[in-house]
Amino acid sequence: MGAMTDAISELRAALGASNVLTGTDTERFSRDWTGKWRASPCAVLRPGSTAEVAECVRIAARHGLAIVPVGGNTGLVGGTANEGALMISLERMAAIREIRPEAGLAIVEAGAILSDVHDAVAAHDLMFPLTLGARGSARIGGLLSTNAGGSNVVRYGPTRGLVLGLEVVLADGRVLDLMSELRKDNSGYDLRDLFIGAEGTLGVITAAVLRLTPAPRYHAAALAAVTSLPASLRLLRRLQQATDGAVEAFEYMPRTYMQALATHRPDLRQPFEIHDHAIMIDLGGLSRPLGDTLEEVLAEAVEAGDVLDAMVAQNEAQRAHIWEMRETAAEVTFTRLPIVDCDVALPLDGVETFIDRMHQRLAAIDAAADTLIVAHLGDGNIHLTVYPSNDAADHLDGIREMIDAIVVDLGGSVSAEHGIGLSKLASMSRHKDAVALDVMRAIKGALDPENRMNPGKVVPAAK
Amino acid sequence: MGAMTDAISELRAALGASNVLTGTDTERFSRDWTGKWRASPCAVLRPGSTAEVAECVRIAARHGLAIVPVGGNTGLVGGTANEGALMISLERMAAIREIRPEAGLAIVEAGAILSDVHDAVAAHDLMFPLTLGARGSARIGGLLSTNAGGSNVVRYGPTRGLVLGLEVVLADGRVLDLMSELRKDNSGYDLRDLFIGAEGTLGVITAAVLRLTPAPRYHAAALAAVTSLPASLRLLRRLQQATDGAVEAFEYMPRTYMQALATHRPDLRQPFEIHDHAIMIDLGGLSRPLGDTLEEVLAEAVEAGDVLDAMVAQNEAQRAHIWEMRETAAEVTFTRLPIVDCDVALPLDGVETFIDRMHQRLAAIDAAADTLIVAHLGDGNIHLTVYPSNDAADHLDGIREMIDAIVVDLGGSVSAEHGIGLSKLASMSRHKDAVALDVMRAIKGALDPENRMNPGKVVPAAK
Repeated sequence: MGAMTDAISELRAALGASNVLTGTDTERFSRDWTGKWRASPCAVLRPGSTAEVAECVRIAARHGLAIVPVGGNTGLVGGTANEGALMISLERMAAIREIRPEAGLAIVEAGAILSDVHDAVAAHDLMFPLTLGARGSARIGGLLSTNAGGSNVVRYGPTRGLVLGLEVVLADGRVLDLMSELRKDNSGYDLRDLFIGAEGTLGVITAAVLRLTPAPRYHAAALAAVTSLPASLRLLRRLQQATDGAVEAFEYMPRTYMQALATHRPDLRQPFEIHDHAIMIDLGGLSRPLGDTLEEVLAEAVEAGDVLDAMVAQNEAQRAHIWEMRETAAEVTFTRLPIVDCDVALPLDGVETFIDRMHQRLAAIDAAADTLIVAHLGDGNIHLTVYPSNDAADHLDGIREMIDAIVVDLGGSVSAEHGIGLSKLASMSRHKDAVALDVMRAIKGALDPENRMNPGKVVPAAK
Repeated sequence: MGAMTDAISELRAALGASNVLTGTDTERFSRDWTGKWRASPCAVLRPGSTAEVAECVRIAARHGLAIVPVGGNTGLVGGTANEGALMISLERMAAIREIRPEAGLAIVEAGAILSDVHDAVAAHDLMFPLTLGARGSARIGGLLSTNAGGSNVVRYGPTRGLVLGLEVVLADGRVLDLMSELRKDNSGYDLRDLFIGAEGTLGVITAAVLRLTPAPRYHAAALAAVTSLPASLRLLRRLQQATDGAVEAFEYMPRTYMQALATHRPDLRQPFEIHDHAIMIDLGGLSRPLGDTLEEVLAEAVEAGDVLDAMVAQNEAQRAHIWEMRETAAEVTFTRLPIVDCDVALPLDGVETFIDRMHQRLAAIDAAADTLIVAHLGDGNIHLTVYPSNDAADHLDGIREMIDAIVVDLGGSVSAEHGIGLSKLASMSRHKDAVALDVMRAIKGALDPENRMNPGKVVPAAK
């Protein structure tokens, strides 16, 4: 305990006592919001600047303590759970330093809350496209550290493509300045993308330059009941074609999801009876309203037998209502335990096969298990939750392994957008290319030789 | 010479004698097309498969020889010049293995020629967006190894965003399988983007999964004389707004470029007299022709005093003519020696200041120097060529250093899309963040501890 006590004293001197939380003051950081992941940090630090983050890292290094950065703690994979580590909360570094409309960028601190960034750039008719249900509490540093996805990747691409620059405090306390403001920059290895998605295992992201895009002036949203998954993909292609790629969200909500929604959120009135397959559509136009186009494409799809029923939002309140049906997913999902929650990606032409095979095999190993699916269909990204009939550890593990095996067989990934954290480590061991794992270990060893940055996450130990 | 002779024998046994070129047979690989970079390889290997590439790398390792991968050799920075190394040409690995329209992807070997990929996917009404003047000889492996940019990054983003998966032979001869077909994949560190842009210093790219997009059905192109750079940027924003972001190219061609074009390619008739600033515009629409919109926006800009003259292409031949005026840039640029050729990126709001300052300072150190500028303006990417009045090495270096200093002062990059190779190593040493260089060295050391993969490129040695 001597090392830790000494470290805490030094940290109090460096940050001020009120920014070094210990004991019961750390409770809100000791569990994630799902309740699934728990661990007690030895202290939670609240630095107010990059220099203070660097000082925290150097003090931790001198005392041999592990470092875990934490943003809004809205992750789903146990990425911040690390018993006895020093947590660095970025919550005091929440400034939006600069918005430069002519250059199309915003410079923000890692603790900036996503919805605050949205609001600030909206004042300039601009948009930072990354969005997800937790935007009111998720912070930029955590979002980038997990390369968080969300609902409009189908239009704006993955988060790493929305980041121009980064600032990172490394394991030795040095500050890596990658705060590029450029659309093109080929000056050496792409270090930026190495830290994006590294879940804090290679360093602590302290600031970022975000790429902004013009905010659509016109929106058109609908909920549509479709006859099948292939019919959904036909509808997506037709919408892309008819709107020049203006599809901002194309979210798959099948019967299991709509039923769970009806049960848990009866206040969220559903516009038509529950069908096997439903899609939430949102279009965004800069130059023209897209409501008529949406109506026309849906009418064609009804004619073609692909769409059974549809409700096109007639005003912003109806559009918000449709979005709320989708964004209640996390709330609706984490209502029961035990769960096996999967976040998988498939090639677009493999989604239906995956779902069919998964249901067949699950029935064989746990006939009483329930499932719930909601998907960013345009990205081939499926959030599948299984509620098994019992919580025996190897039963849960067996279900995950069965799902992973189907995913990998179809060329998919065991983590699409939530990351690895602790929950997918076994999946990484079993299914990630062994050479890739070795290269990741070599990089981790080169940048964090003492293994003190969020140790035990992302890259499983060599066997 | 013993090691090399032994290595050549082993390589002949592995690949067949006709695939191990030595002596005068290597001549076409010993210089780049600009004539600026020359080096004689000890042999040029032409493996026919990934397994053969791996075997080449293992044989090279046993004999302590350096490896330099080469594609179409259309690079501009000396990236393949390495005296006495074994070159691995990917020209026999040129297959387009698979095109999957429903999944929106193509799987290709690293030696596939860019224009062959374009043609193959066009048959499915799809497009691989990366394009540049050298597309008829540039090969995918080289394009990805330099993260090559080109003319339509303004719409489709940088090359790294167009790549879903990669296969790479590592320095120890192991094959790294990152051949993901997924839009989202958060399974560990982003190794893909580490190899993209690494110029062969971390491994040899042997295959890739390319992301395809729907091919525009309608094009509208114009050449416009504008009053200033800020007027050009206003025109770009207005076009983006009016077309929902359908601007595929927005290329800046000022007086210096148009005059060089008139001198060297008098056959390429210019539609109006040469003004200080001209812009080549190309729009691409999926759902609607954009010619009327282009005419309207240009008419508004004439009204507003931003545009002086414009020619809107009335047919595909006129559009091709406008494109040829732009794509003749490399031919027009490399007509004189000595040159200092720069490929810099600036934040969009810093382009004009850069050009003004550069001209002022150049006049002070070499009043007789000429310049030529052509730019991917929508990306803030300027190709600046200086023709100094004398070829003294420190005069050339002084000019580059003067330009680099202005770029860095304005938050820019000394390499936007051509890469580092040999030509920008000194710029990297002087201007890249020292911590970033250290991290790059650590990664290089971890993945290529014997420094045999294209040694001496990209990352300058520590001082």
